[in-house]
Amino acid sequence: MEVGQALRMNAGIGESSYAENSLLQKNVISLTKGVAEEAISDLYCGTLPTSLAIADLGCSSGPNTLFLVSELIKAVEKLCQKLNHESHEYQVFLNDLPGNDFNTVFQFLGSFKQELRNEMEGSSGSPCYFSGVPGSFYGRIFRNKSLHFVHSSYSLHWLSQVPEGIENNKENIYMASTSLPNVLRAYYEQFQKDFSCFLRCRAEELVGEGRMVLTFLGRRSEDPSSKECYYIWELLATALSDMVLEELVEEELLDSFNIPRYTPTPSEVQLDVIKEGSFAINRLETSELNWNVYDSEFSLPEAMNDGGYNVAKYMRAVAEPLLVSHFGEGIIDEVFCR
Amino acid sequence: MEVGQALRMNAGIGESSYAENSLLQKNVISLTKGVAEEAISDLYCGTLPTSLAIADLGCSSGPNTLFLVSELIKAVEKLCQKLNHESHEYQVFLNDLPGNDFNTVFQFLGSFKQELRNEMEGSSGSPCYFSGVPGSFYGRIFRNKSLHFVHSSYSLHWLSQVPEGIENNKENIYMASTSLPNVLRAYYEQFQKDFSCFLRCRAEELVGEGRMVLTFLGRRSEDPSSKECYYIWELLATALSDMVLEELVEEELLDSFNIPRYTPTPSEVQLDVIKEGSFAINRLETSELNWNVYDSEFSLPEAMNDGGYNVAKYMRAVAEPLLVSHFGEGIIDEVFCR
Repeated sequence: MEVGQALRMNAGIGESSYAENSLLQKNVISLTKGVAEEAISDLYCGTLPTSLAIADLGCSSGPNTLFLVSELIKAVEKLCQKLNHESHEYQVFLNDLPGNDFNTVFQFLGSFKQELRNEMEGSSGSPCYFSGVPGSFYGRIFRNKSLHFVHSSYSLHWLSQVPEGIENNKENIYMASTSLPNVLRAYYEQFQKDFSCFLRCRAEELVGEGRMVLTFLGRRSEDPSSKECYYIWELLATALSDMVLEELVEEELLDSFNIPRYTPTPSEVQLDVIKEGSFAINRLETSELNWNVYDSEFSLPEAMNDGGYNVAKYMRAVAEPLLVSHFGEGIIDEVFCR
Repeated sequence: MEVGQALRMNAGIGESSYAENSLLQKNVISLTKGVAEEAISDLYCGTLPTSLAIADLGCSSGPNTLFLVSELIKAVEKLCQKLNHESHEYQVFLNDLPGNDFNTVFQFLGSFKQELRNEMEGSSGSPCYFSGVPGSFYGRIFRNKSLHFVHSSYSLHWLSQVPEGIENNKENIYMASTSLPNVLRAYYEQFQKDFSCFLRCRAEELVGEGRMVLTFLGRRSEDPSSKECYYIWELLATALSDMVLEELVEEELLDSFNIPRYTPTPSEVQLDVIKEGSFAINRLETSELNWNVYDSEFSLPEAMNDGGYNVAKYMRAVAEPLLVSHFGEGIIDEVFCR
């Protein structure tokens, strides 16, 4: 499977779109907002660029795409006012794989800019220039030394491809407790290869004093097949297995399906950053998050306030294109209903 | 009507998409290719940039979007080989209004880059970085002094808005022989305002030695209501008028509909460039083109090789979103059938 073609969040703004089912990811961004604001403020004070270039890698399409960017710009503008600095320019690069729904992102831009202008009333009125950059961040996507700040949230746990040599991971669709050691090793090696490639590319694209704030979905356990990572995919695996038993899905198709995803431990991330050598780590933090995001956020009507329903909707928004590319369109409603 | 929202070419790659009905525009690009190649070669030799930034303004979505860009890159690469220059970077900015189908453009990018690599075998292997820039070119869309070369084909005859004060242009949908003088004046003034704004913005975005190659749909006659501009829109006006008579379209809707478009004479363009003052004109050329592009290009089956059919398909690809935003979805098939 070509991940570059198949991996994307559900398009549009409909019921099963990513735009409508990404509150979890928004919570994550809110959680890391402080860290990102601090990093960009440090960067700004250290470099005082006349044109500040910010890239969001794996921006997806939906309200989250522009949420953090607006927070970052507001933080810098506040700083400028405090320091009595003149207006400068912002360049904002929104990156995702070419299959991402950039059209929806671009439709939102007009009203987003208007809101930002309203909120920044009294500030320097620095102009913001937006562009969409299609391509895999596991390769070069920007010219040399052209970025000041890179942000990536909830994207780097997606691998560039399903690891090779895991044909024997038949009953599972990911790293499970019954996966053989070669499968676990292949997943980790793919992560190492991808992540160090990511670091190498960004080191070429960032200016000398550039900063990155990266948020991964990770795990605490040293065991990559532990329940904490596998839980939500096990629901999917069970649904698919049942459908094989009922002959709704071909067994061979399920045998050859594996999710291209790895959730590293903090020490695995740290090790790779040190090994690659281009970057120093200023902060490395972990947080715990509830999958059923509505729990803590809203008080919803009974029918909606159902953890299983929420998790299924979230997973559909994230995994549908991946499943369609492997199993075809036909099974989707059935599998998420289960 | 908000032109920024309503004006776009038909999306996707289906039968009535712009991608499938833009051979005319491709012919235009082929016609001006030599001029563009010469301009970019001159520019390259004069500035020798390590990163060459090219913008295509009004790129639309379809095969044309990347056709000229690839010709420009190949021309520069050839020059580099001849001059024995080292590899450098290309930045390609594809701009159009936010409603443009950027998703389709981005889907084509992978195979486009592969083709370009194959065709440039033996060249310096300079990397190309692509991005999509949504926004109206009648405003700033790039940061200061960030572009070397601007290309725009068949876009600048679209105005930023329907001219104000032409409520008395009821029976017509454009400048017609029966349009009153205030209508003709309002159209020309809107063009002047828009074009000088375009020039002012680009002057800020281009580097000192930057170049532009702009292709307009224009007219020879000094009379802006002459048949040569109005002909194809008259077909549309007639179809709509007939539908008013048959009560398929509300008269008021037709009365208030005007096409936001002006086709200048060469001397009008020249005058505006001189008046705005940022640019010097190196070359100003005119060419004549057959609307029924298939005439000269292909030998098609009888049913397809029909001028009326081709013109209607071309117009649908170009004007459908504009008509939908004013008249609603319902009338489209009927109007183009007529």
